[in-house]
Amino acid sequence: MPLNPQRTVDELKELRALTGDENGAQRVAWTEVWTRARAWLRGKLDELPVEVHNDAAGNTWATLPGASEKVLIIGGHMDSVPNGGWLDGCLNVLAGLEVLRRIAAEGTPPITIRLVDWADEEGATFGRSLFGSSAASGYFDPVELARLRTRDGEPLPEVVAAYGVDLTTAREAGAELRNAAAYLELHIEQGPVLEDLGLPLGVVKGTYGVERYRIRFMGQAAHSGSTPMHKRRDALAAAAKLALEIRPIAVRNGGVCTMGSVNTRPGIPTSVVAECEALLDQRHMDAAVLARMLAEAQEASRRFAEEEKVEVAWEKLWTIEPIPFHPELIAFCDDAIRETAGAVHHLPSGPLHDAAEVARAGVPTIMLFVQSLRGISHNKIEDTEEEHLRLAVVALDRLASKALAWIAAG
Amino acid sequence: MPLNPQRTVDELKELRALTGDENGAQRVAWTEVWTRARAWLRGKLDELPVEVHNDAAGNTWATLPGASEKVLIIGGHMDSVPNGGWLDGCLNVLAGLEVLRRIAAEGTPPITIRLVDWADEEGATFGRSLFGSSAASGYFDPVELARLRTRDGEPLPEVVAAYGVDLTTAREAGAELRNAAAYLELHIEQGPVLEDLGLPLGVVKGTYGVERYRIRFMGQAAHSGSTPMHKRRDALAAAAKLALEIRPIAVRNGGVCTMGSVNTRPGIPTSVVAECEALLDQRHMDAAVLARMLAEAQEASRRFAEEEKVEVAWEKLWTIEPIPFHPELIAFCDDAIRETAGAVHHLPSGPLHDAAEVARAGVPTIMLFVQSLRGISHNKIEDTEEEHLRLAVVALDRLASKALAWIAAG
Repeated sequence: MPLNPQRTVDELKELRALTGDENGAQRVAWTEVWTRARAWLRGKLDELPVEVHNDAAGNTWATLPGASEKVLIIGGHMDSVPNGGWLDGCLNVLAGLEVLRRIAAEGTPPITIRLVDWADEEGATFGRSLFGSSAASGYFDPVELARLRTRDGEPLPEVVAAYGVDLTTAREAGAELRNAAAYLELHIEQGPVLEDLGLPLGVVKGTYGVERYRIRFMGQAAHSGSTPMHKRRDALAAAAKLALEIRPIAVRNGGVCTMGSVNTRPGIPTSVVAECEALLDQRHMDAAVLARMLAEAQEASRRFAEEEKVEVAWEKLWTIEPIPFHPELIAFCDDAIRETAGAVHHLPSGPLHDAAEVARAGVPTIMLFVQSLRGISHNKIEDTEEEHLRLAVVALDRLASKALAWIAAG
Repeated sequence: MPLNPQRTVDELKELRALTGDENGAQRVAWTEVWTRARAWLRGKLDELPVEVHNDAAGNTWATLPGASEKVLIIGGHMDSVPNGGWLDGCLNVLAGLEVLRRIAAEGTPPITIRLVDWADEEGATFGRSLFGSSAASGYFDPVELARLRTRDGEPLPEVVAAYGVDLTTAREAGAELRNAAAYLELHIEQGPVLEDLGLPLGVVKGTYGVERYRIRFMGQAAHSGSTPMHKRRDALAAAAKLALEIRPIAVRNGGVCTMGSVNTRPGIPTSVVAECEALLDQRHMDAAVLARMLAEAQEASRRFAEEEKVEVAWEKLWTIEPIPFHPELIAFCDDAIRETAGAVHHLPSGPLHDAAEVARAGVPTIMLFVQSLRGISHNKIEDTEEEHLRLAVVALDRLASKALAWIAAG
């Protein structure tokens, strides 16, 4: 059975019809629709000579045994955000399925090939992304996770237990990475870079490191009518200066900085803002430059606080180091894309992916991106040209062949 | 009975003990504590040769009949915000009471003197200030007011009915202004200007005109990690530029501009702000300059929207024209303050006051301000030096004498 990239496109549409509605994809982890999507996938896998099981964290593994115990893994995730797109996550699984079919049709491969559907990549229900892959990588704290609840107050341990996952033993999923020699993941870009360059495919250099902080500026409430401009201690003014200053900081350092939320108190038209709380997210591929971006933003915030006669305090919300992908796999991916589409671009991944967790676990890892139309994702209008989807399947297949040969050669 | 300014200070403390708690003043209109404050005032008035009644809007009027039907009114309000200060509103009533005592002690005055305690100046319960005085001025829409409710959902008409006010006939309070020849109001400044100048008292030129708008900037949600800086349509960036630009607009035009609230959507660290809503309050004593300040802010917002590739829309929330006080009463007030404190400053009132409604009704009106410590009001730390309070009573009394002579002279 030769590779059939059109089948992947057809199966994506089949899945959309089965699990989407007029608002988009509804394959939210730990729901009935997600179970339906996974059962549908299971049906496809059952046609192949593979062993299928769920691990301790709810990840589904399909294994095509090879002549060697060394393993090449191709991965993705069937779950989506609510009202999500038709490609995010499941493109990777279904393209991997097609590659698995092609390899299985050629008889016993020289090494073992596995396809994984990670559980709850999106974190849509508990606000915690990369559930299944972090259980496998070990960057997973059951005590902290046990505190999470759904919006309706249902505790995470009870919700996942209904899907056969015991939170206290979920890290046993790490055993699945034994003998893993390479991990491949295809994903839609979810950004505008490839579309701007007019390229269908790109090599992902790694995932950005992230520094995420809550910044509080504290001034003084004062009557909007009776307080002269020069007497004000306006917390919003300091935050506004920072909202603008993070942009040159991002540009001159080659990263991205986002102030995604601003809250004002008392938040009424008759008072100068007494307190302004902002969320700042900074990302870069280089840990040292990321640290410099953070230091520059902190220094700027202190300067603006002084100028506006307000106080400022920074509270760390979350941080992760940059995770570079494997240099030889980057080279193979570059070749695979050139052979498929003629031209290639190397770019970092802004969003995190399961691949980052696998890389942190020490497995040589690579991702490839396919162009996203308008750069939009996590939305029903998320889309990619069908021709590009077919090219992506071909490139993933070529990459898998190169990785397989590399692993088999030791 | 000669004027006794210390008695006013003592009575303010007596009222504080009767109607305040550890969080400040609690004389909120349409509550039991307010009723207690007004009953206490009634007890004081009953010692004087005055007729006392409530009008159709719940305002309390005490009338000392004079030789002429022409009326001099001194006014204030007993109600406070929740957790308010010990001076806001009631200083005016109690200083007016002391002036009334002094005049009554001298026998029948040449004109009629009236003291008014306006109902619900603060609007703390329904978010609608100047209830009683606007009923008297006629700038009062019973249909609109009938829609207002308390936080617990109680309709305004039912709440005020329990205090003898029929919303549909409240405007009959306008009859109380018949024959009114002048209106005097003393108030704490609620701002820092007099304290900065080291002056106890100031003449109020009038109340600022206000333009209050909701401004919506509409950009595009985009992933914080995958969207390069130059590809963003960040609604917050445009709002931040405007938050800073309103300050030079205010300064060069000699008014005040306040962005008191900013809201961001989706308001998460992983997304560029798609929509940012800001509240802008602009105030000036000159209608033409106020209009120019508004136009400059609107022009700036459009320029910033274009720079940031976002849309902008302005929605009017509320507007009132500047209300200048009466030129001859301003001159009398200037004299009265100079005679009392040696020096004087003329300043506009940023906050609105009942005096603005009386002035709109066509009654010659003047206010005087006494210094506020730290410029703080609507808070239990609101304060004024006792010596300044005594000077304020003296100055109000001198102003009343000058106004009385002016009215009597026709």
